[in-house]
Amino acid sequence: MPLHPFKTINLEETRIARDVVLSRHPDVVVDFREIYLQEPEKELMKQYLALEHSSQPGQSPQSKRPPRLAKCQYDVTGSDKVPEYHESIIDIEGGKRVKHEVVGKEFHASLTLWEFEILVEACKASEEFQRMVAEFKLPEGFELVVEPWPYGGLEVDAENRRYFQGLCFAQNTKNGNADSNFYAYPLPLIPVMDAYLKKIVRVDRLATGGKGDSLTGKTHSERILDHCQSAEYIPELLPGGTRKDMKPINITQPDGPSFKVTDESLVEWQKWRFRVSFNPREGAVLHDIHYDGRSIMYRLSISEMTVPYADARPPFHRKQAFDFGDGGAGNCANNLSLGCDCLGVIKYFDAVVIGSDGEAKVHPNVICLHEQDNGIGWKHTNWRTGRAVVTRMRELVVQFIITLANYEYVFAFKLDTAGGIVIEVRATGIVSVVNIDPGKTSDYGNVVSSGVLAQNHQHIFAARIDPAIDGHKNTLVIEESHTAPWDKSTNPQGNLYEIRKTPVTHSSGHDAAPEHNRTFKITNPSVRNPHSGNPVAYKFTPPPTQKLLASPGSIQAQRALFTQHHVWVSKYRDDELYAAGRFTMQSQVEHGGVKDMVDRKDGVENEDLVVWSVFGLTHNPRVEDWPVMPVEVFQVGFRPSDFFERNPAIDVPSGRNDASVLVGKDACCERL
Amino acid sequence: MPLHPFKTINLEETRIARDVVLSRHPDVVVDFREIYLQEPEKELMKQYLALEHSSQPGQSPQSKRPPRLAKCQYDVTGSDKVPEYHESIIDIEGGKRVKHEVVGKEFHASLTLWEFEILVEACKASEEFQRMVAEFKLPEGFELVVEPWPYGGLEVDAENRRYFQGLCFAQNTKNGNADSNFYAYPLPLIPVMDAYLKKIVRVDRLATGGKGDSLTGKTHSERILDHCQSAEYIPELLPGGTRKDMKPINITQPDGPSFKVTDESLVEWQKWRFRVSFNPREGAVLHDIHYDGRSIMYRLSISEMTVPYADARPPFHRKQAFDFGDGGAGNCANNLSLGCDCLGVIKYFDAVVIGSDGEAKVHPNVICLHEQDNGIGWKHTNWRTGRAVVTRMRELVVQFIITLANYEYVFAFKLDTAGGIVIEVRATGIVSVVNIDPGKTSDYGNVVSSGVLAQNHQHIFAARIDPAIDGHKNTLVIEESHTAPWDKSTNPQGNLYEIRKTPVTHSSGHDAAPEHNRTFKITNPSVRNPHSGNPVAYKFTPPPTQKLLASPGSIQAQRALFTQHHVWVSKYRDDELYAAGRFTMQSQVEHGGVKDMVDRKDGVENEDLVVWSVFGLTHNPRVEDWPVMPVEVFQVGFRPSDFFERNPAIDVPSGRNDASVLVGKDACCERL
Repeated sequence: MPLHPFKTINLEETRIARDVVLSRHPDVVVDFREIYLQEPEKELMKQYLALEHSSQPGQSPQSKRPPRLAKCQYDVTGSDKVPEYHESIIDIEGGKRVKHEVVGKEFHASLTLWEFEILVEACKASEEFQRMVAEFKLPEGFELVVEPWPYGGLEVDAENRRYFQGLCFAQNTKNGNADSNFYAYPLPLIPVMDAYLKKIVRVDRLATGGKGDSLTGKTHSERILDHCQSAEYIPELLPGGTRKDMKPINITQPDGPSFKVTDESLVEWQKWRFRVSFNPREGAVLHDIHYDGRSIMYRLSISEMTVPYADARPPFHRKQAFDFGDGGAGNCANNLSLGCDCLGVIKYFDAVVIGSDGEAKVHPNVICLHEQDNGIGWKHTNWRTGRAVVTRMRELVVQFIITLANYEYVFAFKLDTAGGIVIEVRATGIVSVVNIDPGKTSDYGNVVSSGVLAQNHQHIFAARIDPAIDGHKNTLVIEESHTAPWDKSTNPQGNLYEIRKTPVTHSSGHDAAPEHNRTFKITNPSVRNPHSGNPVAYKFTPPPTQKLLASPGSIQAQRALFTQHHVWVSKYRDDELYAAGRFTMQSQVEHGGVKDMVDRKDGVENEDLVVWSVFGLTHNPRVEDWPVMPVEVFQVGFRPSDFFERNPAIDVPSGRNDASVLVGKDACCERL
Repeated sequence: MPLHPFKTINLEETRIARDVVLSRHPDVVVDFREIYLQEPEKELMKQYLALEHSSQPGQSPQSKRPPRLAKCQYDVTGSDKVPEYHESIIDIEGGKRVKHEVVGKEFHASLTLWEFEILVEACKASEEFQRMVAEFKLPEGFELVVEPWPYGGLEVDAENRRYFQGLCFAQNTKNGNADSNFYAYPLPLIPVMDAYLKKIVRVDRLATGGKGDSLTGKTHSERILDHCQSAEYIPELLPGGTRKDMKPINITQPDGPSFKVTDESLVEWQKWRFRVSFNPREGAVLHDIHYDGRSIMYRLSISEMTVPYADARPPFHRKQAFDFGDGGAGNCANNLSLGCDCLGVIKYFDAVVIGSDGEAKVHPNVICLHEQDNGIGWKHTNWRTGRAVVTRMRELVVQFIITLANYEYVFAFKLDTAGGIVIEVRATGIVSVVNIDPGKTSDYGNVVSSGVLAQNHQHIFAARIDPAIDGHKNTLVIEESHTAPWDKSTNPQGNLYEIRKTPVTHSSGHDAAPEHNRTFKITNPSVRNPHSGNPVAYKFTPPPTQKLLASPGSIQAQRALFTQHHVWVSKYRDDELYAAGRFTMQSQVEHGGVKDMVDRKDGVENEDLVVWSVFGLTHNPRVEDWPVMPVEVFQVGFRPSDFFERNPAIDVPSGRNDASVLVGKDACCERL
């Protein structure tokens, strides 16, 4: 069977693409970075999908199938020249290169995990760095750990060379456990590596002072870790172990799941139908989302996030991660485990990952798919008869989890029985910390444990919604509710409020306004709801979370212009997938991101448009966030608004669940 | 065993209280309204609880047990006099009345369900009303249904007499099902009953026009329902029946629940310990909430809500329900069913309900208590070793559900393994609708089905938080994050933001400010976190939902002054439990509500204070809200903030759940 155009690239395809690239660069060394599916142009896909969704027999979409393309990212290096970064697009079945670009030196490719390993090796090889580490009198049995980070910030030389930085910690090896938590023992050094030279070119010393201390002065003694305390989270190292009184909750589906997965990409569940794919940058992506045969979205993804740190001391302005653009959410995806990351009947999806030689291997269990119960979905009791009809809300969850050094994010797309789609992000993991002198506190963060300052920071996410509400021509309408003038003839008792609807005519940025109940409706002005007469729509209320706090014009703000608004609407163009632009590594200013897209001032009324939802968290750490933080949960919900002709969940069965039991009257805590 | 002071009043106690009241009113007719626990004065309870929580042997709290008191609410009526409303407080064990109040005629008691029945009877007896109904040519087999409502609004006569109003519908009786949805067939009449006379004194005719039509003119024909359509939700009446492809999700706890309930009031679970009680007005109340032996809250409840409708046409300004003050959330609580309203191992709590004769009977299953899994609680993967530690978030849910005519609310208090408390409200049920002429649309709502206009409205809730953060003397601190000045010496790269903390010194109202990440911390300034040095605290971020839209000074706004702010802080006084005041029925202005409390300008720094959280929903109905709306979910979360010395969930076990299974490779949808 021909591969579906949205299907994640497979091992064989990856190898073919690699071989084509190598054949086009015969006399040089090619260091691969990524090979993944180049999605087809939308104009081609519209024709394919029209046939796929056509109910007419004999209308095979294969006649309109666009070629399977692979995007290949790689460095071309010679014996003594600075590597060049290339991107090629390979027609896999045709075995030919269809596009080739040598990317200018003003941009840097996303990092690869083996670049992290090079930093660790470079640190070992650096006499200067080792000498500076040796200045500290570490407790017996403690060993250096270098945590590689991308390098953000201002210091650009003429060549715009590629750098990495390392955060330094020490691990207690006396307990013999490689998972002993080294973050509890931060060292005030940051080595900086030139990635071309693979050498440490500078080591920054960090201030460890508190309120009132200077931004750069040394205030610590050489016994830098003596006041730090163990902060283990691995069960076998926990003082007192784990609690014993948590009895299991089992989620079972004796008749199996209600979803069906075909061809490892097509998911059908409760009138929903969509494709799921996975790529190294965005992780899981949903395509061609339909409900009951009607189109809702062409593509749904998490596009970008940035995590700027607010410690004013140099060089912490360089702590600003772009976890999708720098590291690649897909690359950093966890291989999920049954019975841990989600409960019930689980379907996992694999992806493909390559090494620097371009050799492909399976990246297993990067997405999990499961159903879950989310409480009461709708209920009504007729108080006259006592008859209660109560149904549960069922959700289908497409989840992936990423680890970026100390931190993790759990991303989920949840589709529900009432036609809703929720994007959920859970932030967890270990907060980023630096050493602080004994007894001091700081304006830059919170002392979560002796010697450990958790720096204030923000997490700002951008979700990309490429809607197709009953078709590709849509209009974004801003709807607000306002107190109406109190007027004898039109509003005699002053209880009226009015709903104001404003279509967005041109690509632009907009903000949340909960005080006006500002809601964004993605409408299809050509299709009307037969009852209300309104255009069919899906609506969302942007979470009115705090925007970027870094000063306008600062390096952190320039690199993340997408954080200036909660909602952006741009006119669709192929390949415009990334809110902060294609290249975020060492960026000085956001380039080709959503700000640039909307600055074209394209007409977006009754057009193929893209909506971007930006939301986040100002994270001033709590002591309770240490050593591993409880999840902070964010959600953006998309709900049908006059899209359907009634509650789409009205036909959900209201039967009693037979597995539920009463607690015994006299045996509250006993086995039933 | 002596009854705990917070325990819900029982049948025997209710009967004793009734008998004492009757003995004090020997020569008149007493029509009871409510009998429920009068909670002890806090000063007395502090002494009792200090002993209860003392670990010293021989320190029985019984020596300090306050008397069990019952609040009795009743009308005293004679042969031809207007009833007087009385409230008495009865010392149950002492068998004596300790307080008696004849409430002035400027206030109206909460309604009772039998008053609703009186309205239905009065409608039957009213020739005028029956004649007006007969003006309509109802389809064959359709019968009148009157839906009783409280009467809000301006028209007060000198006597401030007590009124009820009825919304009118017609039910299709041809299908022989008493639960056929009559809301689909609204009739444009509102009968008004004088509750003393038990007679219909006026019938208001409703306009049925659309945009551009006058506020009062008659535009409909006598065939008022011919354009309305069936909108059934009862499974056996659903066209096409219920969907067949939803396979069961079972939640089982083979070792039983992890919670323990003692004395039908004390709940212990995962280091949490609290009492739960139930009363006719607030429903479920949590008392004396402790975690790991430390006090967090003295009392937690939902205090009030108001639902004003925004249809400018008379008499819809009178559609403004106060579901706690008017109807009583406890009175309207559903009797919950196993396997329907929550899944797993369920503990139900009963309450007591009385008739107008004061006879008590059990109000069964008004609260359900159960544990649930809420996804990943915290996770970290060490990318060097690949070791992932992932724990689940477990919640204990105290839930009750109320039905008020067409509408339902699901209220839940959720306590979690990370020390968090979430107040959750789910709004569901049937939106309130009126008749609209064929083909018309309206500025006052949305046409959700032919002939059915769902009016725009708001739901605004008030939760009452009586904190006791490590003791009763607390301070509310407002914390915001602000961009810091970009300055060479203190903020050289412009990445700094500063956290501003402002203690609230006097009782006052405050608003959400998400643009400043405004967070409210309930602190104990006398107890410091040993790591951070900050006062121990619980924090919450008020949902920045839209406030009341009715014009300031309008009747709807005057009755609900509590909606003016998202957060209020008042100094604690006994019996100040209700955000909109004791009496909301037919109120003209909020009296004794939270606005009056804070207007005392009491000092609230390091004091016994009460925090009120006001949040809600501007509900402009969608077609998808018909005929029964999918839940809209609201949450307010309280999280420890430097209250603990580490993540309180760090010792949650990370073991694999053995009941989870893989979807078979070739049998995606088959039984495993």
